[in-house]
Amino acid sequence: MKAIGFVMLLAASFCFAQEPSDFQPATSNVLDSQYPKVDGNSRVQIRFRAPDATRVKLNFWSGPKVDMEKAADGYWTFTTPPMAPGLHYYTIIVDGAEVSDPASTAYFGGSKWASAVEVPEAGANYYLPQEVPHGQVSEIWYHSSVTGTWRHAFVYLPPDYDAQTKARYPVLYLQHGGGEDASGWIRQGKANFILDNLIASGSTKPMIIVMANGYASRAGYIVPDLTGKPFGSPEFMKVMQERMGAFEDDMTQVLIPFIDKTFRTIPNRDHRAMAGLSMGGMQTFQVTFNHLDLFSYVGGFSGAANVFAMGNNKLDTKTAFNGSMADPAAFAKRVHLLWIGVGTNEPERMKTGLENLNASLGEGKIQHVFYESPGTDHEWQTWRRDLKDFAPRLFQASAQPATSAR
Amino acid sequence: MKAIGFVMLLAASFCFAQEPSDFQPATSNVLDSQYPKVDGNSRVQIRFRAPDATRVKLNFWSGPKVDMEKAADGYWTFTTPPMAPGLHYYTIIVDGAEVSDPASTAYFGGSKWASAVEVPEAGANYYLPQEVPHGQVSEIWYHSSVTGTWRHAFVYLPPDYDAQTKARYPVLYLQHGGGEDASGWIRQGKANFILDNLIASGSTKPMIIVMANGYASRAGYIVPDLTGKPFGSPEFMKVMQERMGAFEDDMTQVLIPFIDKTFRTIPNRDHRAMAGLSMGGMQTFQVTFNHLDLFSYVGGFSGAANVFAMGNNKLDTKTAFNGSMADPAAFAKRVHLLWIGVGTNEPERMKTGLENLNASLGEGKIQHVFYESPGTDHEWQTWRRDLKDFAPRLFQASAQPATSAR
Repeated sequence: MKAIGFVMLLAASFCFAQEPSDFQPATSNVLDSQYPKVDGNSRVQIRFRAPDATRVKLNFWSGPKVDMEKAADGYWTFTTPPMAPGLHYYTIIVDGAEVSDPASTAYFGGSKWASAVEVPEAGANYYLPQEVPHGQVSEIWYHSSVTGTWRHAFVYLPPDYDAQTKARYPVLYLQHGGGEDASGWIRQGKANFILDNLIASGSTKPMIIVMANGYASRAGYIVPDLTGKPFGSPEFMKVMQERMGAFEDDMTQVLIPFIDKTFRTIPNRDHRAMAGLSMGGMQTFQVTFNHLDLFSYVGGFSGAANVFAMGNNKLDTKTAFNGSMADPAAFAKRVHLLWIGVGTNEPERMKTGLENLNASLGEGKIQHVFYESPGTDHEWQTWRRDLKDFAPRLFQASAQPATSAR
Repeated sequence: MKAIGFVMLLAASFCFAQEPSDFQPATSNVLDSQYPKVDGNSRVQIRFRAPDATRVKLNFWSGPKVDMEKAADGYWTFTTPPMAPGLHYYTIIVDGAEVSDPASTAYFGGSKWASAVEVPEAGANYYLPQEVPHGQVSEIWYHSSVTGTWRHAFVYLPPDYDAQTKARYPVLYLQHGGGEDASGWIRQGKANFILDNLIASGSTKPMIIVMANGYASRAGYIVPDLTGKPFGSPEFMKVMQERMGAFEDDMTQVLIPFIDKTFRTIPNRDHRAMAGLSMGGMQTFQVTFNHLDLFSYVGGFSGAANVFAMGNNKLDTKTAFNGSMADPAAFAKRVHLLWIGVGTNEPERMKTGLENLNASLGEGKIQHVFYESPGTDHEWQTWRRDLKDFAPRLFQASAQPATSAR
């Protein structure tokens, strides 16, 4: 920065005349950065400056690491084969250092501020801002008696929230994945634009969406050093259960009451839903099935009831979830929507887990929805599509006499 | 990511038992990352993994680049001398590649997602979340007829905004610096916590704060390639004036009407203020003095009327700003507050510019406030202090008969 910092920076956002090429700067770039670029065949060009490096690798998390090629000007480049549509996380490995690309917007994923490139989906504009009324996304802070800390969440308010000062709204609690944070569903997922568009078309009821921080530790809890304690080890699982429990308590004992006090909600189970992706899907199943007095709509996006541990196991619907599914007819009345989804290109373990859960629910005659996102991986395009299918199904049953009692 | 991505990530946020040292993880770290660390003497420890790199430099933007030392485990480390309090931007240069530190929260600065470390200021809690009512920060989107694009802004709503559904509020338009974006005043500046605390103590009137994107280009405008056209060259200045003008038009013709339509504002000049830091200060002086029918409170934080070009020049208050200062008494009635500030450790050019502006205003008998932040540089601690001094002075004169007419 120094003396001319503030001046240099004015110059930094200039956009230059387009090159004669099908490749265009990605919408996920910072300011007017020319790279990454995407062409009409969904190929991606990455360019990274590292004049003195001996080896630079490009690491798209959905694919293999590849070596970038060094040019005379100190830039390293790589052009990918055609990629699936959606937002693809990546990092760059410079002589062994895994870093983000300064040319990309930074998105919080993988427990760090990573890079990502947006590959457009032909004909899909449901997650893009359009000429429709836009809701607001509010950032809120609340002090948690469970964690003993200030916690932070994002709240989507539907377009008419400020104008309809007497109206009250149902609430969807929507959780990010592991290594992401409360900003994920807005910055990566575009949940606000998805809802704006669904509400404008009349296919979805106006609702409030609360996006909380999925990580919590009880006040005073010190996590033991897990070095050498792999996933699945008793020590690891104990810590994971502890943290899942802290999140469950914070959400049900602190966050939900805070939201119902702060916003014009309809504070009952018929008007409260929860969904989440990956780790957030696991949290959703734990929280909702332990608190069916609070929730009546449940969604697992590429993550659900202990999917990570299921492997090829099946779920026994007679005993699972405290027996809440033992009577399928009663369950169908009590839980208005049980929704699970997975991308067809997700890792085998994940796909198998969701498919087995779907099969188990079918064999148990448990009313549910199983959605498969064609050609997408364990990535945000799958979860954008999930939300687009899930949201219109919410709060439709709320008027049923059988379920309107709290 | 792949199969176990969502599992790995659960483990990623574990906090380990503290080492027996005065060094503590910085509050600006991601999740529970142990580095950067800060000790009681405001020394900062940075650690960065680059096992195969031959040279790694630490680049604090407020200081010189320094070589980091490589340890056997592939980590490079550096401990700084005591640093000034506040949030210090930095990057790391790995074999010539300037990148951010994955252990740090990413803040948008220098036209990229940079790293920064928060060095606490002893006894200063005015910018920290406290047990007081908290306002909300709303993210809004509006389509601009000036730029032809969707634009994005942050809006701070005071704590009682939702409860007092009949109340209307004055508005402060608060701009970020060059190379930053609309998120800067919240994520780096903590403007929401500063206002929460000032409002709770009764020293500041509840107000709405609008933080817009300071970069704009008119629809269809293609910025010429400025390669080889240094700052100050006619080509550069022409482009800069063009962009400043586009921002001015977007703010006065699109954003202000949108805000007054969307929120419960008091839509007149007596209840509208503008301030900004660095480039945002220059924009503030241009916008407010070209539109004194819209604004009556003006703040320049480390940036003001063409300060960047002043060098040792003086400002002729008889002719400057369309002659609006020619009559000091009339000016004092019309502009309720003219406020400029600078940090005592800022670069000489910046300090000289503000000091000369202060001197010129004094010689011209122009009523104004000049504030110097002791020991701080062209960095966020200066601007946090500026806001703390500036905000309580706002909207106090609004009741004066002499100025209450629009």
